[in-house]
Amino acid sequence: MELYEALYTTRAMRRVRPDPIPAGVQARILDAAIRAPSGGNQQNWRFLLVDDRDLIEQLAPLYKDSIDQLWGTFYKRQVTAANEHPDDPASASFLAVQRSAQWLADHFAEVPLFLFPFCQYDPSGGSIYPAVWSAMLAARAEGIGTCLTAVLGAFHGPETLELLGVPDAEGWIMSGCVSMGYPTGRWDVAQRRPVDQVSFRNHWGNPVGFAIDTPLWARPQD
Amino acid sequence: MELYEALYTTRAMRRVRPDPIPAGVQARILDAAIRAPSGGNQQNWRFLLVDDRDLIEQLAPLYKDSIDQLWGTFYKRQVTAANEHPDDPASASFLAVQRSAQWLADHFAEVPLFLFPFCQYDPSGGSIYPAVWSAMLAARAEGIGTCLTAVLGAFHGPETLELLGVPDAEGWIMSGCVSMGYPTGRWDVAQRRPVDQVSFRNHWGNPVGFAIDTPLWARPQD
Repeated sequence: MELYEALYTTRAMRRVRPDPIPAGVQARILDAAIRAPSGGNQQNWRFLLVDDRDLIEQLAPLYKDSIDQLWGTFYKRQVTAANEHPDDPASASFLAVQRSAQWLADHFAEVPLFLFPFCQYDPSGGSIYPAVWSAMLAARAEGIGTCLTAVLGAFHGPETLELLGVPDAEGWIMSGCVSMGYPTGRWDVAQRRPVDQVSFRNHWGNPVGFAIDTPLWARPQD
Repeated sequence: MELYEALYTTRAMRRVRPDPIPAGVQARILDAAIRAPSGGNQQNWRFLLVDDRDLIEQLAPLYKDSIDQLWGTFYKRQVTAANEHPDDPASASFLAVQRSAQWLADHFAEVPLFLFPFCQYDPSGGSIYPAVWSAMLAARAEGIGTCLTAVLGAFHGPETLELLGVPDAEGWIMSGCVSMGYPTGRWDVAQRRPVDQVSFRNHWGNPVGFAIDTPLWARPQD
């Protein structure tokens, strides 16, 4: 797959089929992930793949409760606004994300594979995400949809670490949870706030110097 | 560029030429970056491009001091070990990173472009990194070397934010600093700890189930 196609079409794909992901595909995904740079090339990372159905059944209620808590905390204002003004464009966008996230919460136990990335000794905490996003992009090229979420760590961190057998004393930080599976939907170019609305040049608030009305990449056949 | 080539060959490329990066190339890099997913599709991000020579001259001593502090703090143990046992493989690897990082510290003012990503309202702090890594991968496809570093924020955050004009009251977090320029060296597949040494399956410490001796991607002509 061409790089720009992967960058433009790898969105959060939460709705997936239960079909298993072959080991060779998993190997290609992780071998690509570990090529990413890390701070000082320290590679203080671990990648835990979870496909044991019993373990996933035990994680599912923790994930569902985390999503329930998410709507009542971080997104409370947006949930209220979306319910009061469901016809606003912002509400429609938020409700679509909410439905998709709720689908994953309700079907967590059917997802074939999860990737739990961990980092250690990283003051910024950001050093592992190039590897995680590389895994998600490689998955895209393999036809696999993924979604990175932080809610398990935020709301049920200790129970999750215990279920995964992460040693207490070594200071490993769970850097999210990535769901993986063959998607039920189709790959699209994501709609986003345009570059000139979220970019500056040389000083906060200064125009970046270019405006982009339509995505710079489109499917060759479009 | 093919996705796997980008994932396997985008390393930290700190040594770059001063040649400017055309605006159209910058636009392709940022338009690809904003297609990445973010937590809840909130897109609470800003991307500040810096190419003003005076401003970069003012940032340069802050960056150099940050790197000086880095060797005496986070990496003190490794600096000492590498100097005591310079022939160890681990020392050689660390000293290579140190030389490269020191090069950037000494030549910061000659780098043609920097990208400063910012996030807001993100409890995990990780939500912006897919977009940042997408920018770095798109840069790779454009022939531009990049390096993501957290040291300016860690050691000279307030001064850096002031020079960039970031408003105090809005809670923006600087999520690193990415140097960008046409590299002086060549693109290579990075040597990393093999997947089976950094991956587990279903429980911390359990074998992941596959071992990979050589990178799964290689240049077609190799």
